[in-house]
Amino acid sequence: MQAPLTQSQENLTSSPLEDMSQYFSEDMLAVNTLILDSMESDVALVKQIASYLIAAGGKRVRPLLTLAGSALCGNVTENSHLLAAAVECIHTATLLHDDVVDESEQRRGNPSSNSVFGNQAPILVGDFLFSRAFQLMVRTQNIHALKILADASAIIAEGEVLQLSILGKLDTPLSTYFKVIEGKTAALFAAACESGALVGDASQQQQKAAHDFGLNLGMVFQIIDDLIDYAGDETVTGKKAGDDFREGKVTLPIYLAYEQASKEEKAFFESVFKTPSDKQTDFNKALNIIEKYDAITRSKEIAQGYYDQAITNLDVFPDTAVKTYMTQLLNFTLNRKF
Amino acid sequence: MQAPLTQSQENLTSSPLEDMSQYFSEDMLAVNTLILDSMESDVALVKQIASYLIAAGGKRVRPLLTLAGSALCGNVTENSHLLAAAVECIHTATLLHDDVVDESEQRRGNPSSNSVFGNQAPILVGDFLFSRAFQLMVRTQNIHALKILADASAIIAEGEVLQLSILGKLDTPLSTYFKVIEGKTAALFAAACESGALVGDASQQQQKAAHDFGLNLGMVFQIIDDLIDYAGDETVTGKKAGDDFREGKVTLPIYLAYEQASKEEKAFFESVFKTPSDKQTDFNKALNIIEKYDAITRSKEIAQGYYDQAITNLDVFPDTAVKTYMTQLLNFTLNRKF
Repeated sequence: MQAPLTQSQENLTSSPLEDMSQYFSEDMLAVNTLILDSMESDVALVKQIASYLIAAGGKRVRPLLTLAGSALCGNVTENSHLLAAAVECIHTATLLHDDVVDESEQRRGNPSSNSVFGNQAPILVGDFLFSRAFQLMVRTQNIHALKILADASAIIAEGEVLQLSILGKLDTPLSTYFKVIEGKTAALFAAACESGALVGDASQQQQKAAHDFGLNLGMVFQIIDDLIDYAGDETVTGKKAGDDFREGKVTLPIYLAYEQASKEEKAFFESVFKTPSDKQTDFNKALNIIEKYDAITRSKEIAQGYYDQAITNLDVFPDTAVKTYMTQLLNFTLNRKF
Repeated sequence: MQAPLTQSQENLTSSPLEDMSQYFSEDMLAVNTLILDSMESDVALVKQIASYLIAAGGKRVRPLLTLAGSALCGNVTENSHLLAAAVECIHTATLLHDDVVDESEQRRGNPSSNSVFGNQAPILVGDFLFSRAFQLMVRTQNIHALKILADASAIIAEGEVLQLSILGKLDTPLSTYFKVIEGKTAALFAAACESGALVGDASQQQQKAAHDFGLNLGMVFQIIDDLIDYAGDETVTGKKAGDDFREGKVTLPIYLAYEQASKEEKAFFESVFKTPSDKQTDFNKALNIIEKYDAITRSKEIAQGYYDQAITNLDVFPDTAVKTYMTQLLNFTLNRKF
């Protein structure tokens, strides 16, 4: 039996993903080989740090989406494998950097790379993996695929800086929150699906639909992730609720509650997001206000809106097993409790 | 009059570079516009940090080498501009990350980005500029150019990690030092020249020669840079000698002196590189041992070897003004005192 997961970001771990991993098992074998090859380096410390995080698990959600993007349109080819591996390298690079930026202590249930190796080397190994990602893309000889992933990488970095720059600020417009989670999660989901579709011989319409599907799936995923931080069942999530709260990250449930809050409640939010609090009493008070204004239900309704769009995005693809998996993945992502 | 430069890395600032900037003034105008455009972002903090470093100066050595690579073979085109800007974006991204890794306080005579903005945002803005570099390359539609620069980026990151992992270790082979400075400087010089040559319609022989020229020039540059840290005239360099010594970075003069040092001198080096020392007496003692074993002269002889190769690399190119500039740049790089 697996150890309980402590990283909600990677908790897309029920049957749809397992089923897809099974369905794409031969392809994923090839993708994993490419990922492992990408960590190779004459510099021992590079390999050590890169392997440390990649070996620690992760559900390979993004590579699976790349393969699915190809399969939805036509065939999974060697280029799909290369892009799937590239996407995972980009993802891993961002995790290495995010953990340094957030001073994270844990990642995927293990001590984070920065906890083990300090801040310096993980920054540089992130750069290395990012370079490796582009080397993998170059091997496809497909300049459009490179464009899709270079554009996504810029959006990811911008989203992360935006998240930093609004830390604790409750007066930022809701659109800013959506831009942050697009950068944090949805942009790479979109690029994974779109680049997969591109090399799967998608029509232009299908390529756009694959992009939009990934984007909407990513938005659902991140909104639910943010909501679970206030509404998750700890016995199921295996992680302590309130991480975002303690880090001063203003997420959707807080935005929605704050909008309707009384003067006094607003003042409370302003104080605990200005100077993040790790007091359980403060967290409980926040939970009460969130509940009072029905902010969890309303957050989920917003996620449902993205879900509905994603379902529509699938219309242009022929009915296949992979299309069914995509629908199941969407359902699971919206309804997961952990 | 310019303020004294404090960053030796950017001290290639005598006439050859100024002459080249003049010669390529229209092209450099286009390149600078592309660089400025690359810093554009809806996220204010991204633009602020990217501009901070880029506006602080820098001699645009690498973009000039890209333009020169094209000019040596044929014509400078819009693709040369795009790659020149891409190379500068990669360089700037590495500076942002290096300053965080090295906990630098100064860069180009100003407080470093990390001193001003903290460590978090500069890491992410580095990622952003790295992505922008690949977006610029994508615009050339030239997959080979992308390969050249993606490969170089991986070597750069590996070199930086290698440098970290041998910090203070005197028993590493000299070949490791050369690998470090290849990553630190020569790989991007090589890629700048080679990618410029590629889009300047170079023959395969010319493309290889451009790469090798850049590599050898970069090796000369970094060896002299490392040597100046022990032999530079502070009244000329405007910076305090001994930075590498105080940071525990083992560079060529130390390697060469250590090899021949007595048991007692070896023990001294081992102690001050194990726990870096900022005592002037220790630095002076190191200087004496370096002088005793003629390690500065011998370092310069090694640089001369790379210089000779670089001169030979230029043979395949027709005689042009730019070829003359390249020779002058080499001479200047070998003989600079700052």
